[in-house]
Amino acid sequence: MDPELARLGHVALETPDLDGSLEFFRDAVGFEEVERNGDTSYLRAVDEFDHHSIALSEADEPGVDHIGWQTRKPEYLGEFEEILDEEDIDVTWIDAGEELGQGEAFRFTTPTGHEFEFYYEMEKPDPPAERRSKLKNKTYSRTTTNPIAPKRIDHVQLWDPAANDFREWLQEALNFRVQERYDRKDGSRWGTFLSANGNKIEAAVIEDENAANDPALHHIAYKVDTADDLFDAHDAMNEHGIPTDGIGQHSISRGKFLYVRDPVSGHRIEFNAGGYLVFDPEWETIEWQEGDLEDRQWIGQIESKARVDY
Amino acid sequence: MDPELARLGHVALETPDLDGSLEFFRDAVGFEEVERNGDTSYLRAVDEFDHHSIALSEADEPGVDHIGWQTRKPEYLGEFEEILDEEDIDVTWIDAGEELGQGEAFRFTTPTGHEFEFYYEMEKPDPPAERRSKLKNKTYSRTTTNPIAPKRIDHVQLWDPAANDFREWLQEALNFRVQERYDRKDGSRWGTFLSANGNKIEAAVIEDENAANDPALHHIAYKVDTADDLFDAHDAMNEHGIPTDGIGQHSISRGKFLYVRDPVSGHRIEFNAGGYLVFDPEWETIEWQEGDLEDRQWIGQIESKARVDY
Amino acid sequence: MDPELARLGHVALETPDLDGSLEFFRDAVGFEEVERNGDTSYLRAVDEFDHHSIALSEADEPGVDHIGWQTRKPEYLGEFEEILDEEDIDVTWIDAGEELGQGEAFRFTTPTGHEFEFYYEMEKPDPPAERRSKLKNKTYSRTTTNPIAPKRIDHVQLWDPAANDFREWLQEALNFRVQERYDRKDGSRWGTFLSANGNKIEAAVIEDENAANDPALHHIAYKVDTADDLFDAHDAMNEHGIPTDGIGQHSISRGKFLYVRDPVSGHRIEFNAGGYLVFDPEWETIEWQEGDLEDRQWIGQIESKARVDY
Amino acid sequence: MDPELARLGHVALETPDLDGSLEFFRDAVGFEEVERNGDTSYLRAVDEFDHHSIALSEADEPGVDHIGWQTRKPEYLGEFEEILDEEDIDVTWIDAGEELGQGEAFRFTTPTGHEFEFYYEMEKPDPPAERRSKLKNKTYSRTTTNPIAPKRIDHVQLWDPAANDFREWLQEALNFRVQERYDRKDGSRWGTFLSANGNKIEAAVIEDENAANDPALHHIAYKVDTADDLFDAHDAMNEHGIPTDGIGQHSISRGKFLYVRDPVSGHRIEFNAGGYLVFDPEWETIEWQEGDLEDRQWIGQIESKARVDY
Repeated sequence: MDPELARLGHVALETPDLDGSLEFFRDAVGFEEVERNGDTSYLRAVDEFDHHSIALSEADEPGVDHIGWQTRKPEYLGEFEEILDEEDIDVTWIDAGEELGQGEAFRFTTPTGHEFEFYYEMEKPDPPAERRSKLKNKTYSRTTTNPIAPKRIDHVQLWDPAANDFREWLQEALNFRVQERYDRKDGSRWGTFLSANGNKIEAAVIEDENAANDPALHHIAYKVDTADDLFDAHDAMNEHGIPTDGIGQHSISRGKFLYVRDPVSGHRIEFNAGGYLVFDPEWETIEWQEGDLEDRQWIGQIESKARVDY
Repeated sequence: MDPELARLGHVALETPDLDGSLEFFRDAVGFEEVERNGDTSYLRAVDEFDHHSIALSEADEPGVDHIGWQTRKPEYLGEFEEILDEEDIDVTWIDAGEELGQGEAFRFTTPTGHEFEFYYEMEKPDPPAERRSKLKNKTYSRTTTNPIAPKRIDHVQLWDPAANDFREWLQEALNFRVQERYDRKDGSRWGTFLSANGNKIEAAVIEDENAANDPALHHIAYKVDTADDLFDAHDAMNEHGIPTDGIGQHSISRGKFLYVRDPVSGHRIEFNAGGYLVFDPEWETIEWQEGDLEDRQWIGQIESKARVDY
Repeated sequence: MDPELARLGHVALETPDLDGSLEFFRDAVGFEEVERNGDTSYLRAVDEFDHHSIALSEADEPGVDHIGWQTRKPEYLGEFEEILDEEDIDVTWIDAGEELGQGEAFRFTTPTGHEFEFYYEMEKPDPPAERRSKLKNKTYSRTTTNPIAPKRIDHVQLWDPAANDFREWLQEALNFRVQERYDRKDGSRWGTFLSANGNKIEAAVIEDENAANDPALHHIAYKVDTADDLFDAHDAMNEHGIPTDGIGQHSISRGKFLYVRDPVSGHRIEFNAGGYLVFDPEWETIEWQEGDLEDRQWIGQIESKARVDY
Repeated sequence: MDPELARLGHVALETPDLDGSLEFFRDAVGFEEVERNGDTSYLRAVDEFDHHSIALSEADEPGVDHIGWQTRKPEYLGEFEEILDEEDIDVTWIDAGEELGQGEAFRFTTPTGHEFEFYYEMEKPDPPAERRSKLKNKTYSRTTTNPIAPKRIDHVQLWDPAANDFREWLQEALNFRVQERYDRKDGSRWGTFLSANGNKIEAAVIEDENAANDPALHHIAYKVDTADDLFDAHDAMNEHGIPTDGIGQHSISRGKFLYVRDPVSGHRIEFNAGGYLVFDPEWETIEWQEGDLEDRQWIGQIESKARVDY
């Protein structure tokens, strides 16, 4: 039985100005700051129980320190280490608590150059008592959170000059499944939309045709409920004077989107509504060909090619 | 490694008047009739790919023939059979295709008297070409479906005079996990909210205090998007002259609800919006005590104790 | 040409505990406190430009000081005074600024005992600069207001033992039009739904069958956008520990509602979504008879007979 | 006392292919065809009581026959005729019933070349019994209408090389009020947003800088409820294969929009959500200057300069 991942858990981002970036992530978008430790702020979305889904650290340059994945069982940590060892990939173990709230973990570089972290345990701290919802199955009372705040982490989009090698490795070494894929007219693969747990797309792997670029994170997507929530979030960005990359709906995944970037670090958040879940273990990959639709966007247009290298 | 279920798949219902019940399920609620076979109609929700999530058969009395669960892997069928055999529970194998669209399956009676079916394969027929969405990841064009039609099956609520025995057996023999539970002031358990796959509540097991009653299905819940969808569905029921059991929001599960029953058979559908998903394998059961809130409903009231015995 | 009213403008309420009532109106519901003057707080809804739509004053007992109506033209003030004089109704003139933000006005008691105020001018103060929306056609940036805050005043519901005399007088002396009405099976009138300006119901006049009661205000209704907003407002009331009188939809007016009362004064606010506008001067009164529908509520039930006498 | 208009009532459009255009207006967008008379189809929106808000006639070329305005009182027809006579504008009287459902009316050409019709009476036919809502204040049961169908006519946008002369004339001769206006940096007026009845923008008059163009109708706007309705309508257009001009939100009027054109005639419909109403007779014109915001769109972009000349 191969080890399995449970889900995308968090992303550790770097910014040249932590306070400046917190004006975006915490004050404008509405992530909750759960804990601060020196130059690192731990943030979560308002419907998350976990200690953090974003760790934001001050560094010389904007960057991505790692993308964190939770294993499905604690013993899978060791089993994944063995698999990586067979592939001559070194892992670096991180003590429990070194990343606040998190148990024992290890980090490694994927063959095409992305930084990943695997862990199993993550604390679930309660909000301050005066902000705790009366509902036991909800953390924050909505009366105390930013009304546009997204609910929970959904997926990351990764750019890679060797996207195909990368997604093959995700499938074969790490047991990711392919929920959708998009091929160009010449047969080459543009994008592969993978799931760690089989329920939803958690990693969109897109081919960066400029081989000179490094692998990069394009955005982190968080869930909101409706297209009206996207309009409300856009309205708030306007009031804060933060430019956006537009509203629309993807054909792939059916997700409705609003993209917006931290003006300080350039890190991009997607507010994402809609889409679909897969509970069927027999899901057949949705196979898009260039030309199936006039555009990869079902609604609207988005030109947001900027990336944060790491 | 114990065998696991993937999800709640379908419910096979019986009605004394198939055409009359189709006026409710197909015409008023908007389920799609995928195929008809003699006295059985196979229905699915408009955002389902599977052949059916309801099989509706004419019979002398309203009833529930079985509740169908898909296993996580094909080989788990046999492994579950062994587990049931050890518990002296007989299984009846059903040939592939006997239930239309479905692969090989078996049925059995749980120790407290519910009828279950386990299967792995289910066909995913396309809608008629003129109704197929241009989106490859969507079945029906929304321009061709009932605007109030729910999207996908979510959970069943089961009543049982021996609810605790039943939920223990679901946990121990079938690997269900407990997402939430509600205990009375005297310490007795009123309800247990279980998940087959760990992502969402799929079986609410409620204690029927009248020991004279048989185990029963209280309702089948289907997902819609918003509270406005509940109002729209209620509006449609009013226009069709179908009484409802009211609108509100549960504290447990956080699901917003509209309950409505087929006037012919009494089978009850829940339109369900909201709630939350669990992708964390370390989820800690939400433990409600009577008195935590004034009421089990966060919003509204619902008095809908009627059941369909089976 | 008879003088005409432009609209319902504001209601002046009395409470035995101003600070306590502000916890409801300002902190929980999200009205904006525009100005305070001694024992009176002037409040407006977040999408209003006017100085206030509620004036809340401390007094020995909860009560309604007056209901304020804006005339369609300044000269109509004098013309209405003449009409009232012909009916032997005394008016009391109020200097400009005595009620903060308001121009010259007069108050009087209607023949069945309601306290009305007529005025033409009302200031439109800007919010503090840091809260002003960048949109010139909007007062407050939504990033600075309570997310459940209602948008603008819509109507009042008035109870009266002599409701029919009252509504006849509103029609004949004050030129109110009847948008809808509801008659009992015995032919008697239960409710009349009148409009000052012809565009929407602004005064619901309901017969209080208990002749011992005084004329009373049942509630003040404010507009929100959707049924989901009603659920969100109910959720917020729950988190604040404020009981509600339930969610639903009226048949008359088609308004979706949530009723909630200030725990200190008992004054009731309706969050109201939906309904319809009339721009047609030839609108024909909608005539409901008891028995047309099973219930006066299209969706849900509401038992909220409590009133604030004045 | 000057005569007043009550509202924008309807637009009479011409198309080279009536059946083809009905595939757009009736089948795709969901207008209800109330009556057909030879080469003219009379359409209304699903929450309108009037006989029609669009009259669609077959003609050699796409065009606009007239824009119909209802007067506030029947006697204002004659009073407006006198005003027009003083301005040496000829009116052509139309017998009651010549335009189906409509009472006596007259048509005339405005000084800058738009075709207007004034009328007072319009029939309010009931839908077929099986489609009539049980609610007496609603025409069609929503169970029988297109789910994306807009609710009621809102405004027209008119292009004119002499836009300023035109809007001055609308103000002075016809008593239109200016709700908002937008001036360029050089002080010249780009757009004026006028109201016939004072409650909402009903005519947006935009300067067409190409003096060679004739006055033209840019679009007719109809109300829907939410931004999600705009996404749903866009989704339906995609499924029907009808291109759109995009989704967004105007700064002026705060209206959220989706523009879509009849592929046969080029006539453009705006699905419009949000905005605000004015019940205050003292409304102060909102004065925008180029540069107040980066863009005239608060959200999104729209490039839709095409016009239908008439």
